Amino acid sequence: MDAAEFRRRGKEMVDYVADYLENIEKRLVYPDVEPGYLRSLIPTEAPLEPESYEDVIKDVERVIMPGITHWHSPYFFAYFSAASSYPAMLADMLCGALGCIGFSWAASPACTELETVMLDWLGKMLQLPECFIAGTHGSGGGVIQGTASEATLMSLLAARCKAIRRVQATNSNYSESDVLGKLVAYTSEQAHSSVERAALIGGVMMKQVPADNSYAVRVDMLKKMMEEDKAAGLIPFYVRQHTNQNKACQGVDDLYMCVLQFCATLGTTPSCAFDRIVELGPLCNEENIWMHIDAAYAGSAFICPEFRPLLNGVEFADSFNFNPHKWLLVNFDCSAMWVKKRTDIIGAFKMEPLYLKHENQESVFESLVRADKRFEICAEVIMGLVCFRLKGSNELNQNLLKRITDSREIHLVPCQLSGRFVLRFAICARTTESSHIQQAWRHITQLTFELLQEPSH
Amino acid sequence: MDAAEFRRRGKEMVDYVADYLENIEKRLVYPDVEPGYLRSLIPTEAPLEPESYEDVIKDVERVIMPGITHWHSPYFFAYFSAASSYPAMLADMLCGALGCIGFSWAASPACTELETVMLDWLGKMLQLPECFIAGTHGSGGGVIQGTASEATLMSLLAARCKAIRRVQATNSNYSESDVLGKLVAYTSEQAHSSVERAALIGGVMMKQVPADNSYAVRVDMLKKMMEEDKAAGLIPFYVRQHTNQNKACQGVDDLYMCVLQFCATLGTTPSCAFDRIVELGPLCNEENIWMHIDAAYAGSAFICPEFRPLLNGVEFADSFNFNPHKWLLVNFDCSAMWVKKRTDIIGAFKMEPLYLKHENQESVFESLVRADKRFEICAEVIMGLVCFRLKGSNELNQNLLKRITDSREIHLVPCQLSGRFVLRFAICARTTESSHIQQAWRHITQLTFELLQEPSH
Repeated sequence: MDAAEFRRRGKEMVDYVADYLENIEKRLVYPDVEPGYLRSLIPTEAPLEPESYEDVIKDVERVIMPGITHWHSPYFFAYFSAASSYPAMLADMLCGALGCIGFSWAASPACTELETVMLDWLGKMLQLPECFIAGTHGSGGGVIQGTASEATLMSLLAARCKAIRRVQATNSNYSESDVLGKLVAYTSEQAHSSVERAALIGGVMMKQVPADNSYAVRVDMLKKMMEEDKAAGLIPFYVRQHTNQNKACQGVDDLYMCVLQFCATLGTTPSCAFDRIVELGPLCNEENIWMHIDAAYAGSAFICPEFRPLLNGVEFADSFNFNPHKWLLVNFDCSAMWVKKRTDIIGAFKMEPLYLKHENQESVFESLVRADKRFEICAEVIMGLVCFRLKGSNELNQNLLKRITDSREIHLVPCQLSGRFVLRFAICARTTESSHIQQAWRHITQLTFELLQEPSH
Repeated sequence: MDAAEFRRRGKEMVDYVADYLENIEKRLVYPDVEPGYLRSLIPTEAPLEPESYEDVIKDVERVIMPGITHWHSPYFFAYFSAASSYPAMLADMLCGALGCIGFSWAASPACTELETVMLDWLGKMLQLPECFIAGTHGSGGGVIQGTASEATLMSLLAARCKAIRRVQATNSNYSESDVLGKLVAYTSEQAHSSVERAALIGGVMMKQVPADNSYAVRVDMLKKMMEEDKAAGLIPFYVRQHTNQNKACQGVDDLYMCVLQFCATLGTTPSCAFDRIVELGPLCNEENIWMHIDAAYAGSAFICPEFRPLLNGVEFADSFNFNPHKWLLVNFDCSAMWVKKRTDIIGAFKMEPLYLKHENQESVFESLVRADKRFEICAEVIMGLVCFRLKGSNELNQNLLKRITDSREIHLVPCQLSGRFVLRFAICARTTESSHIQQAWRHITQLTFELLQEPSH
């Protein structure tokens, strides 16, 4: 499909989408199909010849729609709301076209920077304490996760890393898994299953605190549970010694359970109950327990002054999360997560292979490189990736790459192979032609010529 | 924004997208900005009054584009390819409009079923062994993950769960963390950072196997490393006793390291090298080591007969993954993962809270319920969720919900509160009006009337 056909089909799709949403009430909100219905409607294998767009698009009503639960029908009252709005859909169209994979600043600076600033905007809309706002100099800040489940897992892993480092700082003979086996996290019996699942993945124990008759956790219940666990020999007497953080876990002979985290819920899934974080927060802070707040559904409401008091106590939290993709007109996926200390999260996952670092083919390319005796190919070329370098020092190649990057005509990243600094040339865009590759090579050799001309060489 | 305006703006966006992609070569492939550029271009807080669409859309060229790395420019040769095509973009538009959150079959049957069948199609295109194809009766099958990193993590967690259960089956005195501390996984020194990160998250040790001079791992190198670890007292002599799976870890006094997993890479990130899985596979099978294959980039090429031989050995793998969103014209995100035994993955994460189980407002609703003395409200209503039930047995309420579900006019799910079966009514769709809620209540009461009329009551 070329751009001309996309202009036509894209506009047809816009009308189809608007028709669908305007007439959604006419459809069965919950589908009338049995498991396995779809397989019987289509071939068992992909076709060998392409089909026309018209034929493919007919499958939407024939095959897909009969099995759709219409989440945006006004007759849908199940689970929780999933947000959807026309502006968000327009934004998604644009994102799809840009198609950046923004895993680092350099991978696409606008992605990282827009995310940071928008999470500051959103945090201010919720009147989060300033420590959660990145600004130009803050230690905290927000990121977009895919789901609240992921945010919960991230918070648990950050807390785990922190706890392990804290114990090892005074007890260097303990391995990570020694400490891991002694970590316990608490959450409400009403909490979402993803909290338990985070503990499962993170390899820590999780205990469920009973809720009161409004299905909320109060501080006396958490205290009681911790006291019982202490009496059972599981929790050390850090309650008395809370001024010394390291006493959260004692010496060699008495490495009891360390309380890792309390995951509070504001707006539980079964009944939208609210854990009493105004009381729970101070306890967690005293005991050096990471408090994460899962407000997946209810968080959007905190923008309203009449609901903001339900968020009081967030100032005690280490991390806070809610889902604009539930109730704030942003289509899935968009789960907003804030932390007081970005370094807690970053430090837990620190990896820095060379192809992620930055400062600031087709056999055609391989042939071009091989034909130029100043260069060498560094690895067998089997697919769309050519690893090459100037014969010479790592520094020479670093200089060459810097010139390539600074001139902004083409974009490459480096890697390390056998201790050598190597340039990677990957064939990427669908529209890359031979001419682009030839042009890229001309550009590289021009910069090489200029580089080698310089007095230092 | 209403549907009429969306029809107009959507078509404008289609043209903008096509213009962007047709003229992408005119833009600097790598942006000329410094970190922090974006914050200075926009206000520090969200506006209090809405802005016109025209003003918002101007920000795209003014604020966003200057900081974009143009991944789909034919001058982009960095990292690896990110796939993009017009049909995929059209599909994304449709998905955004349907906006289903397909976390279970009932949440939207078409989502689950289409995913399963499409992964069968794709698996057949790659000529995966039949054990990876779900079909109507297979034990294996494919799912879509967000990224290869997630697939790697999933495979490690599944392998971890399996290993722990295997050890505990013969050594019930071992806790999970006892075993966890003895698990080690292997991967190439050339492997992607996400493999190491998966081990970090999963709390297991990871050791990097040296690659040969083509940057690939060969079986003799893995064997050598395992032998060295065995001599160092880390690995038990399961090599001789490989006929007895449980001997992978010995009894109480000699719980040595258990080799959990080998993560093989087909197409490494630095140089697209290929681990020798034809040799490595049989070793892993003999030693009961989960073999995961990460073919994130190269996998798409295996559809071509001339490249398919590079996948020989996949028949020995427990899990296999590649990214259609790299090289197969499917926009991000779409990472395809197959397993031989679905139960390995499912079993590792088994959670079943009631609101996930299935067979196949607004104060308005609360008032309606309260006014009808046959019903009771089960939890305080603070936001858009009302928990209610018929006064009576759980069985009565289960029957009521079944009738509601079977008539398919509205959609609700249940939950458990204090041991009671409760119906949840959540206000979801943006277009839900008072009239829909009134209609829903009329429907519920009608079904209630019919239910209570029956002889058994």
